[in-house]
Amino acid sequence: MGGDHAPDEVLRGAAEAASSGVKVVLVGPRAMLLTRLAELGLPALDVQDASETIGMDEQIRQVRRKDDSSIHVATRLLQSGEAHAMVSAGNSAAIMAVALLECGRQAGIDRPAFGSMLPTKASDCFILDIGANPEVKPSNLVQFAVMGEVYVRVARGVEAPRVALLSNGTEQSKGTEEVKEAHEQLAKLDLDFVGNLEGNHVFDGIVDVVVCDGFAGNVLLKGIEGAGTFLFDMVRQEITRDFWGRFAAAALIPAFNRVRRRVDYQEYGGAPVLGVNGIVINCHGRSKAKAIARAILQADKMARERLVERIGEALQRDDVELGRRRLLARALHLRGEKA
Amino acid sequence: MGGDHAPDEVLRGAAEAASSGVKVVLVGPRAMLLTRLAELGLPALDVQDASETIGMDEQIRQVRRKDDSSIHVATRLLQSGEAHAMVSAGNSAAIMAVALLECGRQAGIDRPAFGSMLPTKASDCFILDIGANPEVKPSNLVQFAVMGEVYVRVARGVEAPRVALLSNGTEQSKGTEEVKEAHEQLAKLDLDFVGNLEGNHVFDGIVDVVVCDGFAGNVLLKGIEGAGTFLFDMVRQEITRDFWGRFAAAALIPAFNRVRRRVDYQEYGGAPVLGVNGIVINCHGRSKAKAIARAILQADKMARERLVERIGEALQRDDVELGRRRLLARALHLRGEKA
Repeated sequence: MGGDHAPDEVLRGAAEAASSGVKVVLVGPRAMLLTRLAELGLPALDVQDASETIGMDEQIRQVRRKDDSSIHVATRLLQSGEAHAMVSAGNSAAIMAVALLECGRQAGIDRPAFGSMLPTKASDCFILDIGANPEVKPSNLVQFAVMGEVYVRVARGVEAPRVALLSNGTEQSKGTEEVKEAHEQLAKLDLDFVGNLEGNHVFDGIVDVVVCDGFAGNVLLKGIEGAGTFLFDMVRQEITRDFWGRFAAAALIPAFNRVRRRVDYQEYGGAPVLGVNGIVINCHGRSKAKAIARAILQADKMARERLVERIGEALQRDDVELGRRRLLARALHLRGEKA
Repeated sequence: MGGDHAPDEVLRGAAEAASSGVKVVLVGPRAMLLTRLAELGLPALDVQDASETIGMDEQIRQVRRKDDSSIHVATRLLQSGEAHAMVSAGNSAAIMAVALLECGRQAGIDRPAFGSMLPTKASDCFILDIGANPEVKPSNLVQFAVMGEVYVRVARGVEAPRVALLSNGTEQSKGTEEVKEAHEQLAKLDLDFVGNLEGNHVFDGIVDVVVCDGFAGNVLLKGIEGAGTFLFDMVRQEITRDFWGRFAAAALIPAFNRVRRRVDYQEYGGAPVLGVNGIVINCHGRSKAKAIARAILQADKMARERLVERIGEALQRDDVELGRRRLLARALHLRGEKA
């Protein structure tokens, strides 16, 4: 029931994913959904009844009380193991809150995060957190890095993702106290940490994971979105200003469409909610059938490749690694040597 | 001596500004500058000798010790009143540090800030801080708002600039603790505070001043810069991919140039350093003559319109205003009434 084009586009997307072999269960008002599927000429799908829905602007306090909302019912299916993953284009804050309520946090993660893929000159780049945690501790940033690294391994099949910290300068001395402390900790982990990255280099394709607090991540992604829209609008205005411009504009439409496609969030499916005890994908509210279908296939892949378990393994591995090095450093320190 | 194209482009820009009536004093190695002016066929300008220069990557500790650097000498001219404003395309951090050392902070400002103009769909928008303060207190954000508001009044002649706080959501409940507290304080000031603004709406032309900490501001501006470069590169790639594309590209060059001009930082001169006790403009390191000349004219205007004094007046007015309202609120509270 979530998103600007629900239920029709969600139903179309679900049907498309189901036709490629994923077992899809719809969650929402059963009678209405079955009628709508039939009216749209789509095949019948399993429906799990949920009597309530959550609006895009509802306060979290109200949301938690709506015990029979589609988000509540879906997260309970996830928690019980009846479903292996959940996809929704609904209210992000509500999805995060209810997923935490019903499934809990995954062990070793203090604060779950939203992530998003961004196209670059080379391969795509994954950014987290993009809005769940406006304020973070250094340990949260370190956990985001571990989660993001595993996500990129699984989602893009990159063997050793390069991880960077978003900052206001490349030098280690740049950034907030939290960023500087996280920098030190990340340098000790068993992952390819390349240091600080500035906002303009996100597009260079030199890193696979960009780690930041949810305030900076949100500002970055929305600034990029705003700049893109602004520039396209300006170019469109300018090229339709004179005869040759209008002529050229006609020839340009295919090229412009190719560019739009490369930066289109629909191609990316949805944003994973990382750190909850289950696979949850949050699609953009504007998602149409294609984006929904992609998100479902992506969720299916995450479940098959055991995303949550692999994040757990990475956290353990890194804790052990970090612990060992610390013990070694302390031992050397006691003996008066340099670690 | 500052910037990627010093001294030639700086000299050309200075000569251009001088030709329109501004009295310009060059600061740097006198003999070399006079020779270079002659070699470039430019008229002689006043030169204040400075034997040292500061590199773009020098550490602040070293910088402070270079007592006869062009930045030191220029800020001392400012402090003594021999100069009314200072313009440099050099190392931003060094300019901020030395300006603070020589001129001090302006009364009522705890932390100076860098600001920058950004084009939007409507009128330009001024953003601060864009990098001087990665961490802020709510009172710093409030001071940035007051400084930015006065700057826009003076620089753009806007009578009642609309001021917004950058946040990760429009609701008052969104943002870091500092943003939320600043939101409350700004709502009480005697300026047109319109609330929180998200990064994608910076371009809508609905506000004149965007207030943020230096970390978020830096991330936003650099993200926008990166997105712009990325999109232009992609469009260029796409339109030269086939025959019609190449044909169209030729017809498009004038339109593209018009767009570039509208987003070109050179048109904006430089970024003011607000909150130091004097008028200081920091140009982009890539600045050429046109940008330098514009920055000098801008600095001249700031000086004539008494920017620093007017910021001081605004701070006093708002303190008084705030104090009065608080006293009133307390009095009503004591009497059991609603303020």
